[in-house]
Amino acid sequence: MAEQYDVTDVIITKRDGGRLSDGQVDWVVDAYTRGAVADEQMSALAMAILLNGMDREEIARWTAAMIASGERMDFSGLSRPTADKHSTGGVGDKITLPLAPLVAACGVAVPQLSGRGLGHTGGTLDKLEAIPGWRAALSNQEMLDQLESVGAVICAAGDQLAPADKKLYALRDVTGTVEAIPLIASSIMSKKIAEGTGSLVLDVKVGTGAFMKTVELARELAETMVGLGTDAGVRTVALLTDMSTPLGYTAGGSVEVEESVEVLAGGGPADVVELTLALAREMLAGAGRSDVDPADKLADGSAMDVWKQMIRAQDGDPDAPLPAGKESHDVLAPSSGVLTRLDALAVGTAAWRLGAGRSRKEDPVLAGAGVRWHARPGDTVTEGQPLLTLLTDEPDRFERALASLEGAYDIEGGAAHTPTPLLIDRVD
Amino acid sequence: MAEQYDVTDVIITKRDGGRLSDGQVDWVVDAYTRGAVADEQMSALAMAILLNGMDREEIARWTAAMIASGERMDFSGLSRPTADKHSTGGVGDKITLPLAPLVAACGVAVPQLSGRGLGHTGGTLDKLEAIPGWRAALSNQEMLDQLESVGAVICAAGDQLAPADKKLYALRDVTGTVEAIPLIASSIMSKKIAEGTGSLVLDVKVGTGAFMKTVELARELAETMVGLGTDAGVRTVALLTDMSTPLGYTAGGSVEVEESVEVLAGGGPADVVELTLALAREMLAGAGRSDVDPADKLADGSAMDVWKQMIRAQDGDPDAPLPAGKESHDVLAPSSGVLTRLDALAVGTAAWRLGAGRSRKEDPVLAGAGVRWHARPGDTVTEGQPLLTLLTDEPDRFERALASLEGAYDIEGGAAHTPTPLLIDRVD
Repeated sequence: MAEQYDVTDVIITKRDGGRLSDGQVDWVVDAYTRGAVADEQMSALAMAILLNGMDREEIARWTAAMIASGERMDFSGLSRPTADKHSTGGVGDKITLPLAPLVAACGVAVPQLSGRGLGHTGGTLDKLEAIPGWRAALSNQEMLDQLESVGAVICAAGDQLAPADKKLYALRDVTGTVEAIPLIASSIMSKKIAEGTGSLVLDVKVGTGAFMKTVELARELAETMVGLGTDAGVRTVALLTDMSTPLGYTAGGSVEVEESVEVLAGGGPADVVELTLALAREMLAGAGRSDVDPADKLADGSAMDVWKQMIRAQDGDPDAPLPAGKESHDVLAPSSGVLTRLDALAVGTAAWRLGAGRSRKEDPVLAGAGVRWHARPGDTVTEGQPLLTLLTDEPDRFERALASLEGAYDIEGGAAHTPTPLLIDRVD
Repeated sequence: MAEQYDVTDVIITKRDGGRLSDGQVDWVVDAYTRGAVADEQMSALAMAILLNGMDREEIARWTAAMIASGERMDFSGLSRPTADKHSTGGVGDKITLPLAPLVAACGVAVPQLSGRGLGHTGGTLDKLEAIPGWRAALSNQEMLDQLESVGAVICAAGDQLAPADKKLYALRDVTGTVEAIPLIASSIMSKKIAEGTGSLVLDVKVGTGAFMKTVELARELAETMVGLGTDAGVRTVALLTDMSTPLGYTAGGSVEVEESVEVLAGGGPADVVELTLALAREMLAGAGRSDVDPADKLADGSAMDVWKQMIRAQDGDPDAPLPAGKESHDVLAPSSGVLTRLDALAVGTAAWRLGAGRSRKEDPVLAGAGVRWHARPGDTVTEGQPLLTLLTDEPDRFERALASLEGAYDIEGGAAHTPTPLLIDRVD
């Protein structure tokens, strides 16, 4: 088949600051997916997009073309409305684990397609795989059946959902073109729109541990994604939340599952509970169920019931002991005072180096590896007390993990500490 | 071997507007040549270089790294000084053909490594291959022997001369990253410096038929290349010359060889003679032989003698008839008046579509294909006279060639025409 467009014309249009026509976008995404546009051509285009941007219509068309590269799912036959949530990725961000069963306990179905971690941010599927027997891969029919029977599913996206995005994401990762707002927004939204959720809440992270280091960039990304979702008929809202400090007191596999179960049991760290409830209320509002208070469902145990059903439905044992790191190393507080800073990127990098994360897609993770911290900013600590505990099965990993924690925290004598608010802004 | 640098770090440095360190440049050029940096990574870097630029030291280091990727030639053992010329490419630009034997006839050796055409600009080797028997590929020893015995050689560059550039040039051609001044300058100068010429004259084309559409861009490219040559110990000067009008009266293979032979016989189009002599005088000055007047060597037949020796030394027959296009089509003047414009890009595209050029490296060219024009800007034409003659062996090519000539010329009744000067500026 003769090609309708010339790929260098498309690249040069964006290189020279022009806008891509609808036909150019449709063609280049399709041609890349089927291999008629080569990786080296798409990476040059991605760099030109990163440096010269795209307008809202171009991003919407690009997103639509990525959706059109694969199948679309349809949840309209379910007896309940659907709501999904996406986080742009942070450290200690286990929120999906308590959130999905909590929202399902409130009467809204949660079809949560999740990913694996790459770099210092943990992946939801990696965390859940710490649970003995649990499996991430479901067929579309299994997913639909579980949504109807349990109300919540957390699983891997199938190969047929936005295959253009899968190919492009892997390319961007090795070509220095990850941090392009049009490409981040279209990558996330193409999968969420193709997945077929009725409403969507975006948790856009801001701070050292996030891709977006400033509120301005995070707001631009949030507004872009909310616009894409709204235009595609998905009720979409975004919360901008802090990721300069890691969430809760744990980062890793087993340790984050344990902390999530504490939240489902009505306890858990205050910030994890606050963010879980804030996102749950947004999801319920998007699905037209603002009449239900999710705090009640944590208190009465019904969220925990859905959690156990959800884990069992995917062959996991929610009551089995979780693998623990075989080796541990404590970092002691070097002085007494108030902990005024605990850096999310440093903690995430330490957990990653301990084996909780991977640097290549094909690497395994260690379920028992991770970091526990025993104080959060604002807490008073005493010289010599354990400040962080490092966990792994492979003690030769401690040295590099400790190196990443140098300069990762501040302890100030008698300082009055004003904590950073967790919820920064809301975009709808 | 563990890599010393991370390729995404290098890409991101340039993407974010930083400068590459010497170590990064050396590493990335070497790693790309040996395949440790992939095409899709280098194309993203090339796009970032195109959009964010390089400073003079970065370009010099990049050029040195490309030279270091292969062998260097050495002409210091020759009994004569050496001078070379490079044109950035134009339409009807056959200047190398008369220039090399002319300068050799003046006592300076000319080691002219040339290329093939791609797109609308013709390639010197393609033109010479119209001569029955002539071969472009010489060993290094054959080239040296011919330089000593004849004084002039026009041949293809060997595979071992700047292999990094060969690989990068092919990549840039398909990724919309050709028009980056740092990459154009380092590509040209790495080959010329590795070739080992003692002095170099650059013919930087400006206008519709050139890569550089404005005098400002052409001057920036010229200054960059003159700086690189001078820093590497090659006496280098650049002329900025007009390429809004094609050179002479012909574009193609056989027709340009014929026109070149006319110049060597003491005749030929005034502009071709003017540019040939201007470049010859610069080459002679660079080689310390300003005492010789090249016009004398055209007049006394000695340049023609060297031409015939040069063609014979490469197995060509300078007296054999050249292949002529089997089919011709005349474009008639639609009105009477003064021809005020003949567009170089349109004429070059017509010649290309008639078969004188190729769109892929592996395509053959038709020696007899091309365009003759019968008037140049400033000439008076009469309605109905042939204005251009299209030549090819394949008559189905006429339609697309004619389409490229729409709007390619202006004829104005009684207009006073001020011709564009051929020589625009000189940079040294």
